Amino acid sequence: MRDLLRLAVDPGIVSLAGGLPASELLPTAELRACLDGVIERDGARALQYSPPWEPLKEWIAGYMQRLSVVCGPGEVFITNGAQQGLALLSRLLLDRGQTAVIERVTFTGVQQITAGRGAAVRLLPTDLSTGADMDALEEALRLEPRPRLIVLIPNFHNPLGVSISAEKRRRAAALAAAYGVPLLEDDPYSSLRFEGADIPPIKAHDQAGMVFYIGSFSKLIAPAIRLGWIVAPAGLISQLTVLRESIDLEASGLMQRAVASFLEQGLLEPHLARLTAANRTRRDVLLEALKTHLGDIAAWTRPEGGLFVWVTLPPDIDTWECFEVALRSKVAYIPGAAFDVSGGSRNTLRLNFSNVSPERIPSAVERLATALRGG
Amino acid sequence: MRDLLRLAVDPGIVSLAGGLPASELLPTAELRACLDGVIERDGARALQYSPPWEPLKEWIAGYMQRLSVVCGPGEVFITNGAQQGLALLSRLLLDRGQTAVIERVTFTGVQQITAGRGAAVRLLPTDLSTGADMDALEEALRLEPRPRLIVLIPNFHNPLGVSISAEKRRRAAALAAAYGVPLLEDDPYSSLRFEGADIPPIKAHDQAGMVFYIGSFSKLIAPAIRLGWIVAPAGLISQLTVLRESIDLEASGLMQRAVASFLEQGLLEPHLARLTAANRTRRDVLLEALKTHLGDIAAWTRPEGGLFVWVTLPPDIDTWECFEVALRSKVAYIPGAAFDVSGGSRNTLRLNFSNVSPERIPSAVERLATALRGG
Repeated sequence: MRDLLRLAVDPGIVSLAGGLPASELLPTAELRACLDGVIERDGARALQYSPPWEPLKEWIAGYMQRLSVVCGPGEVFITNGAQQGLALLSRLLLDRGQTAVIERVTFTGVQQITAGRGAAVRLLPTDLSTGADMDALEEALRLEPRPRLIVLIPNFHNPLGVSISAEKRRRAAALAAAYGVPLLEDDPYSSLRFEGADIPPIKAHDQAGMVFYIGSFSKLIAPAIRLGWIVAPAGLISQLTVLRESIDLEASGLMQRAVASFLEQGLLEPHLARLTAANRTRRDVLLEALKTHLGDIAAWTRPEGGLFVWVTLPPDIDTWECFEVALRSKVAYIPGAAFDVSGGSRNTLRLNFSNVSPERIPSAVERLATALRGG
Repeated sequence: MRDLLRLAVDPGIVSLAGGLPASELLPTAELRACLDGVIERDGARALQYSPPWEPLKEWIAGYMQRLSVVCGPGEVFITNGAQQGLALLSRLLLDRGQTAVIERVTFTGVQQITAGRGAAVRLLPTDLSTGADMDALEEALRLEPRPRLIVLIPNFHNPLGVSISAEKRRRAAALAAAYGVPLLEDDPYSSLRFEGADIPPIKAHDQAGMVFYIGSFSKLIAPAIRLGWIVAPAGLISQLTVLRESIDLEASGLMQRAVASFLEQGLLEPHLARLTAANRTRRDVLLEALKTHLGDIAAWTRPEGGLFVWVTLPPDIDTWECFEVALRSKVAYIPGAAFDVSGGSRNTLRLNFSNVSPERIPSAVERLATALRGG
């Protein structure tokens, strides 16, 4: 994965492989001013060890409330990004060797955290229109040994691009409560919607305190600020604090202040408006190019936000085997099998549309189609 | 520990408890200019996902060479600070339930990482003049089951203030090599020497690739930049990268660029000159006050750098019991037992001299002495 992402820096290759927000759309000037402003305002206090920055936790609690989640700042834990949220919660909630339920096709970071706990995994199929299969989830929760963790990606799934339907979200929360199994809701993309209506997160249906929401500022503002958050029952925040102290002490007080300043100034909304408008154009251009060059043999998801489209090809096309041919013709993607825990999905691939200029997409997809059709 | 550190923010209390660098001595203006400068220079690239910043790795390799360590940038791994170095290396090198050797009295972060691995620990006594006991280390390495990790703090030990002698460092490296046991050298303070000659780190004597050096910029520059490093054999850097990807992906590219800029401009040396001069004065004032107010009953270490002095009182004084009395008289410290894995050292305490203005030290120590003598 990392090696593939490195390709994004070769200027000769059009990379549809990575998961980066577009560099030219990052709020660089705004963040520069926020960093400078908080150091001017707070001086050395912004550079010292510090407890979590309350104004940031308060903003996040308000943001969660706007997503229909009942949440106060005492239920917010600041992380270094969504991956740290997954890593901390899996260490806290899943003993070594216990069983976890994840989707068969899912983000590699989810696979890494269950592997890191030595977990046995039960795998869910995912419907490409409505998301993870809830009948399969219920079946997985009924089997012994009882699973101790569920991980789902509700919005604009990585790599599939699909969102879990409202009905399924209600059911996921109900199943977690009924079986007493913690559910990690990994949601780094929800504010990147450019089409359709927002769907409240699974956490909004959580009466039992069994859903742990994981957010991130990496895609909303910028990756290098390295900040995200967890929403968890207030009683667990001190356990997270102790665990995190042993791992890397705390998040940067400077970055927390700068991001809080960015948010308090209302800079997020206009930034997201620009970003999602650009992403929508890029998705449209990508889907149009897929129709033109692969419409006769392929199917793909139509994401309403996020970063990724998932393409399914005829069974005899192996996207690992085509990868080098595509690279030689200067276009990169991620073979779908990289996301399939069971080793399948060899006739699929993930395309990113957020970090490529729309002018370059049609010819890149044309070259991709040629490579997939056998060079 | 965390709760005690919180006291440092109550302005009424003179805290000799924490481990913070002095806020008024942080290079705030310089860091502000560096952050602003790298965003101006690199634009959005400074805010994007990015691989480790090569100029920073190169500077660190040069720094290690000045410490007599043979090291290239390919052996440097960037972390979010020394604690993350301990956490990553312990996960990579120590299987769950294996045995580790640590000092009986040591930094709580060291205790946390061995506890986090479910490790059985063998405990070394520490000589207050020359550091960890190497005869005891050899004995611990001979016993079955064979330990799989050693952790030592070479300079200005937290909490003891002592440095390991040159002779003992050579022997530590030789023992790690002879028994094939990885040794973590946790060295966040080495550049904070204000007296005496530098002693090359244990890593300088490492022919066998068994010593893993852990450094940090938190005390050298500022805590909120959240950056440190590991020096490890080049072959292990990719394993560290994969492990770190599952934990929190990567360090902030922006912070790495800003710190590299700070270092390349030669701002570290004048900053450390100011910082260590102030620390030396503070240590001198603290030791003089201890002599005046506790000289008849106590002994203490005389650190040549770092942040901490360790005080030993008569056996009938319990520093946990005195703690609340001291707090009521507006002075805070850390009871030594907090650092003693075996639960002993109840007649000891750790004092910090780096984050208290010298004018406030004598009266604080006078109140401390009254509290310790029974109010």
